[in-house]
Amino acid sequence: MGTEAVHTVMKKEGMELVAVLDYKQIGATLADTGLFPTSYTAPIYTEMAQLVADTKPDVLVDLTNPHAVYAHTKEALQLGVRPVIGTTGFTDEQLAELTQLAADKELGAIIAPNFAIGAILMMKFAKEAAKYLPDVEIIEMHHDQKLDAPSGTAVKTAQMISEVRQAKQQGHPDEKETLAGARGADFDGMRIHSVRLPGLVAHQEVLFGGEGQLLTIRHDSMNRGSFMSGVAFCIEEVVSMKTLVYGLENII
Amino acid sequence: MGTEAVHTVMKKEGMELVAVLDYKQIGATLADTGLFPTSYTAPIYTEMAQLVADTKPDVLVDLTNPHAVYAHTKEALQLGVRPVIGTTGFTDEQLAELTQLAADKELGAIIAPNFAIGAILMMKFAKEAAKYLPDVEIIEMHHDQKLDAPSGTAVKTAQMISEVRQAKQQGHPDEKETLAGARGADFDGMRIHSVRLPGLVAHQEVLFGGEGQLLTIRHDSMNRGSFMSGVAFCIEEVVSMKTLVYGLENII
Amino acid sequence: MGTEAVHTVMKKEGMELVAVLDYKQIGATLADTGLFPTSYTAPIYTEMAQLVADTKPDVLVDLTNPHAVYAHTKEALQLGVRPVIGTTGFTDEQLAELTQLAADKELGAIIAPNFAIGAILMMKFAKEAAKYLPDVEIIEMHHDQKLDAPSGTAVKTAQMISEVRQAKQQGHPDEKETLAGARGADFDGMRIHSVRLPGLVAHQEVLFGGEGQLLTIRHDSMNRGSFMSGVAFCIEEVVSMKTLVYGLENII
Amino acid sequence: MGTEAVHTVMKKEGMELVAVLDYKQIGATLADTGLFPTSYTAPIYTEMAQLVADTKPDVLVDLTNPHAVYAHTKEALQLGVRPVIGTTGFTDEQLAELTQLAADKELGAIIAPNFAIGAILMMKFAKEAAKYLPDVEIIEMHHDQKLDAPSGTAVKTAQMISEVRQAKQQGHPDEKETLAGARGADFDGMRIHSVRLPGLVAHQEVLFGGEGQLLTIRHDSMNRGSFMSGVAFCIEEVVSMKTLVYGLENII
Repeated sequence: MGTEAVHTVMKKEGMELVAVLDYKQIGATLADTGLFPTSYTAPIYTEMAQLVADTKPDVLVDLTNPHAVYAHTKEALQLGVRPVIGTTGFTDEQLAELTQLAADKELGAIIAPNFAIGAILMMKFAKEAAKYLPDVEIIEMHHDQKLDAPSGTAVKTAQMISEVRQAKQQGHPDEKETLAGARGADFDGMRIHSVRLPGLVAHQEVLFGGEGQLLTIRHDSMNRGSFMSGVAFCIEEVVSMKTLVYGLENII
Repeated sequence: MGTEAVHTVMKKEGMELVAVLDYKQIGATLADTGLFPTSYTAPIYTEMAQLVADTKPDVLVDLTNPHAVYAHTKEALQLGVRPVIGTTGFTDEQLAELTQLAADKELGAIIAPNFAIGAILMMKFAKEAAKYLPDVEIIEMHHDQKLDAPSGTAVKTAQMISEVRQAKQQGHPDEKETLAGARGADFDGMRIHSVRLPGLVAHQEVLFGGEGQLLTIRHDSMNRGSFMSGVAFCIEEVVSMKTLVYGLENII
Repeated sequence: MGTEAVHTVMKKEGMELVAVLDYKQIGATLADTGLFPTSYTAPIYTEMAQLVADTKPDVLVDLTNPHAVYAHTKEALQLGVRPVIGTTGFTDEQLAELTQLAADKELGAIIAPNFAIGAILMMKFAKEAAKYLPDVEIIEMHHDQKLDAPSGTAVKTAQMISEVRQAKQQGHPDEKETLAGARGADFDGMRIHSVRLPGLVAHQEVLFGGEGQLLTIRHDSMNRGSFMSGVAFCIEEVVSMKTLVYGLENII
Repeated sequence: MGTEAVHTVMKKEGMELVAVLDYKQIGATLADTGLFPTSYTAPIYTEMAQLVADTKPDVLVDLTNPHAVYAHTKEALQLGVRPVIGTTGFTDEQLAELTQLAADKELGAIIAPNFAIGAILMMKFAKEAAKYLPDVEIIEMHHDQKLDAPSGTAVKTAQMISEVRQAKQQGHPDEKETLAGARGADFDGMRIHSVRLPGLVAHQEVLFGGEGQLLTIRHDSMNRGSFMSGVAFCIEEVVSMKTLVYGLENII
């Protein structure tokens, strides 16, 4: 993900990649590593303080695993750099502390478990639509190597819908399954169906039925590129923010 | 259904509605009943023998309930009229006898539980595709007044696929449902999902996954008109046939 | 549409059909007309003033053609009844006058060209999504008796998107059509495609593409029942409103 | 494509990669090249004759560009090896000569412009469906870097349908475009629509409309892996064949 973020920033008009942070020594510049084109001349630092002193970045992007991310986020804010962080690995206490720190420094900060703007929009629209069309079913479709069903996004969608939809059993009260499981998983009376096939990547449909009509909101994620436009969007937004926001749904 | 069949035959170029059979007295002609336009002048009979003697029809269409349909079908063949029958209500013995009778008389006859040509094509194509792409899931979607799940068409589709697909468990061997039923019903390792929402009519998707690709065959039935083009097709076909055929999938 | 509105109100918990207005004499009650069940005992009036004096309705529903609708709407407001009107046939002057009248009387009033809540939501969501995913194509699908292409809803959707999307040419700058028309109609650089087939009713998909992802918002209208849930929603809403609203998108 | 074919054969039960042919010197074995795992020990040859003498393969797979492919195919047949070739670059004379050579040797051979089995099935089913439901529209969807519209697959599909469908103008005879191009490209009266958006890969829907129903056949190609299952299928098939076949649609 870090590699793709580098390409995203390099290609995006209005953004400049001033430096790269890597805690192990991999070369003086990106080009030196042999993993990037020779035009990628951004210097690589192993210390954030030195990086900030030399290159004065506006934003720090960190999409790595949650291991040391709390420390990095805190250090960035203390050094006056706005963090854009992709992970779910914060405790409530850490989030509270970072939120306070951002507020004190009047610095924007974005922490997002999911950067796919289309998926965020799907969930937001689903929550909105359920106010008017409360009969809902979710079909999520993933590759057949996925272990858990339903997907985290399907459950998150159902939870968001539940905030506005009164729980009620859908379908005919006397309906019966002649093959067990046909009607899918039950979440507050909504049904969730999980399809697993080779060839699929990550897809979800939310169907809303009303008299004589159907509304469908669908998101297809074809590859990790779907995260990158969300990262770019956050870099642009965070510069003009003065507080920490958790979750993309709160800024779009 | 009988009413719609009348309209279908009246509107179809190359077909003529020579008479109508109704076992209770409803009027001398269709127009007399007050249920049809005045241009619908076909006479109504209560006796098949008289109808045939007077109007010499090529084909008898019977889409009514299965009650007396065996007797009607047999009488039609004995009178030299080709039957096109829409019902599932025959015993194996009755079918065998009618098949023999049609063969003896060298008369075409079609008995079909489902006249929706698109649905028949969906099932045929699904069976064919499963030979090459054996990872299959079925999503069927109906209005929320439907009692049984999965639908008869979904089960019939799975059965036809099973004739060519070696039974095998799909999905990851270690997959687990965090909400029971998420992965749908299991039919020889294929999964079937039943969606029920107001606004839906009768729809089915068969999804075939392979490395890097997905093949989807979908049928949407919007109203009973979908049966009528199948009826018209059978009327045209039966005239040149010399045997009884059970199931549209055997002539298309 | 009037007939279906009658059924809608009769079936809806919390609503009562106190009277019917019909400007020609068709019977003393709905049951008298022979077009409704005998349990439909609401009286029929030919004069609105008398109807209001006798039955004191909260709301007037008028879904008839635009002919006399301005006069009816005005009369209803003057008599203290909240109008729910389905038509596009008002002039700007008439709308301004009715808006003023509703405000003076502190009465709710809803005038809506389109009552299909799902279609309104589709358009609202499309406008919202285009802020983040400005590459958009619209596919609208209707029965093959429709004369004009694209549909009014498709054009309305594109107009709403244009309010938030900077006009730009989509697709490769050097793309070329080897068959004219393949790329559809051009609306500010967005493309609109119109499919016409027997069997279709009224459907629309709005597709938003971004790096590695696709967001699709689709509405299927299966029959006129789709309007009725919107009518019921408006009856409920208008009672607590104190001004005139034009267009369902402004209250949902 | 060659690299992916190597992985496909290595992973497939019942197949063995006995040797690799590369006309420039890249190493003694696949592992030597540094591009494959160390378990990939198949030797690399620069001469087909030597390769065949040493390793006695049953099948030659060549998915490279059409440049030298005619010579390679001919040499393989002369050496008693069955070719599986992915290219469109043969002249009619070359195909005739290779067909004769395969027949003389009683050797199977497969030459296929498109190995995506799902796409081949879509085209075959579309041709079959059009016999019964002759009102057809095609929607093909590709990434926005594609230059030509409609796609080659869409045109090939329309051509195959035209072999069984009498040309006729679809839609209402008086329909009119209020925005030019809305109704798409015209191919014998069928309409073809080309969608181009970032995020799309290669997708096609063929829609068949009939009274009250819709049949849809859709293929989604997510990545080049879709070709590999077709390659594996051909390797298995070619071993028991005794003639040359051009086009996968002739063996599935």
